[in-house]
Amino acid sequence: MTQRRDPLEVVKPQVRALRAYTLAAREARVKINQNENPFELPDELKREVLAEALKRPWGRYPDFDPKELCQALAAFSGWREDGVLAGNGSNELIEALLLVTVGPGTRVVIPEPTFSLYGLLTSVLGGESVRVRLGPDFGYDAGVLARAGREAGAAVTIVCSPNNPTGSVLEPVDVEALCRESDGLVVIDEAYHEFAEATVAPLLERNENLVVLRTFSKAMALAGLRVGYLLASPRLVTEINKARLPYNLNFFSQMAALGALRRRDVLRDSVARLRRLREALMSSLRAMPGVAAVHPSRANFFLLEMAEADPKAVFEALYARGILVRDVTSYPGLERCLRVSVGSEEENEALERALQEALALAPAGRRK
Amino acid sequence: MTQRRDPLEVVKPQVRALRAYTLAAREARVKINQNENPFELPDELKREVLAEALKRPWGRYPDFDPKELCQALAAFSGWREDGVLAGNGSNELIEALLLVTVGPGTRVVIPEPTFSLYGLLTSVLGGESVRVRLGPDFGYDAGVLARAGREAGAAVTIVCSPNNPTGSVLEPVDVEALCRESDGLVVIDEAYHEFAEATVAPLLERNENLVVLRTFSKAMALAGLRVGYLLASPRLVTEINKARLPYNLNFFSQMAALGALRRRDVLRDSVARLRRLREALMSSLRAMPGVAAVHPSRANFFLLEMAEADPKAVFEALYARGILVRDVTSYPGLERCLRVSVGSEEENEALERALQEALALAPAGRRK
Repeated sequence: MTQRRDPLEVVKPQVRALRAYTLAAREARVKINQNENPFELPDELKREVLAEALKRPWGRYPDFDPKELCQALAAFSGWREDGVLAGNGSNELIEALLLVTVGPGTRVVIPEPTFSLYGLLTSVLGGESVRVRLGPDFGYDAGVLARAGREAGAAVTIVCSPNNPTGSVLEPVDVEALCRESDGLVVIDEAYHEFAEATVAPLLERNENLVVLRTFSKAMALAGLRVGYLLASPRLVTEINKARLPYNLNFFSQMAALGALRRRDVLRDSVARLRRLREALMSSLRAMPGVAAVHPSRANFFLLEMAEADPKAVFEALYARGILVRDVTSYPGLERCLRVSVGSEEENEALERALQEALALAPAGRRK
Repeated sequence: MTQRRDPLEVVKPQVRALRAYTLAAREARVKINQNENPFELPDELKREVLAEALKRPWGRYPDFDPKELCQALAAFSGWREDGVLAGNGSNELIEALLLVTVGPGTRVVIPEPTFSLYGLLTSVLGGESVRVRLGPDFGYDAGVLARAGREAGAAVTIVCSPNNPTGSVLEPVDVEALCRESDGLVVIDEAYHEFAEATVAPLLERNENLVVLRTFSKAMALAGLRVGYLLASPRLVTEINKARLPYNLNFFSQMAALGALRRRDVLRDSVARLRRLREALMSSLRAMPGVAAVHPSRANFFLLEMAEADPKAVFEALYARGILVRDVTSYPGLERCLRVSVGSEEENEALERALQEALALAPAGRRK
């Protein structure tokens, strides 16, 4: 018998070098750290879904392809049904897309700062992230992105718009320019598009290298049930689908997503309300002493930049007052920022009160 | 502007060459094609889960790590909690495991015939499947597997036990020998272990290269909700976890899985009943004219080999009578076989009647 290797030696070096994406479990009275919709779907709808679930056998697999849901998503998004893929959150679909396109040495253009999963999955697959820093006040520049992609020979460019965690939007006209000038796929993660009243789905028809990702976890108020979808050309969907796991979407999440689509009237109202609340909250925080900036955002969250106070101390002081926001100080360029989700009226008021106290108490961090 | 590539050119060649794993959607009165548990969990338990779901906000993310479920799974399996990962079906966990270990050129030992997803994912990742044909009457041979792995320098060996679609078991003593003689990871997919009354979980303590996969989709009667788990050394789990998607398990599936664990008494009874039904059904089919063999199986399904009749014609004749089995004739070595799941008493009787008629009517295929 040969000497046995340490079992960890079969783990790829790029994986061993990675730090896992993680988020410490913290509970709080006011949870404004995950960009969730604070306004729940109506109880009446939930009861409908639950009654449906009781009638359906739990021991039987869901459909291999969630056909009814894909049909409804096609109608909802205005895109063809054979160009729709549904998944266990949009995370699963970005994973499937990267699985079929990225291997060792493949270049993926990823703006910075942005949602960290894109870079993490690229690394696991052995690909190389080509990082493009956002411009002044975190703005996107389609020309800079396109040039970076062409110079790197990138297979994929991923743009989160509105961007997590900055709220920046790449306008449809710029997305179209990026598609036209890119030699690879252009993925627009529209997780927050409802809050921006902007979508690039209408561009799919004439841009075969465009991929749109969407989720039920934000505006659609179903973060607990993990449903996302992808829109692209049918030819591309056929390829991405090869890396989608069979039966990936459980029957209950399918029923809930169909239910949410039935009640899009309610969701439309809650999105409009959150947009109004966002503007009000951003204005009043901008006027608050100790706040250096509230960065413009078209999502249901924004970056709050401290003037003097140490952001980590502010984070903890808020948490001590029952308010949980997101510490984003480890992102490049966000060393003095916290990310705040827009909550309900009461939640936003609680945040304002707590922030005033926190800023008065928190020790100064290093200045800008 | 440079000439744009066809967007499909960024898809990896090994993916473009693949045929997607698929299963045509067919409905039938007697559905014995997916090895599901025909005995549902009690309505009373389902109502408990539904009531719990109504109390929980749907717009809020599930826990980053499903801690309560992992604790319950640790207690249930007798393995340490920091060595447990829960996923959206065991498919997702085999994907995460292969993501962190397989890149271009990595060798993965996979018996043949077996569950096709292992080979599919290996190909997507650019790895090479080293196929090891099962022995006479589809038996496993640990020595042959270990030798194949050593000769290939394999990073991973995946053994489904009981095997889908043959029902073959690799005995714990042989799994231990395989672990000892393998230089890479040994993954035992125990999707059907309850029906064999065999598990290798107790071997985890002294075999750090062993990984055990389990599912709630078969004996646990929750195929509709997609829950699986993985047991391995904490060091290995830490690495595999880097490729697990955050929030991968929705809150409802977590609640249902916890519910199933509370009612393990019911599940134990249904498994015992299915084992008795399996023996009775296999005996009576063995005595049926036109059946060449009913292959030994310790799972909740078995291979039915035709003497003269064309298996595809038998499949269709059964389907015309409301019975849906699995056509496995495309698997190497199974050209004359259908796979049949053990159903309820009534379902098995319906199968027997329909099979008698089908065999009398079906045209002859090529002889063995």
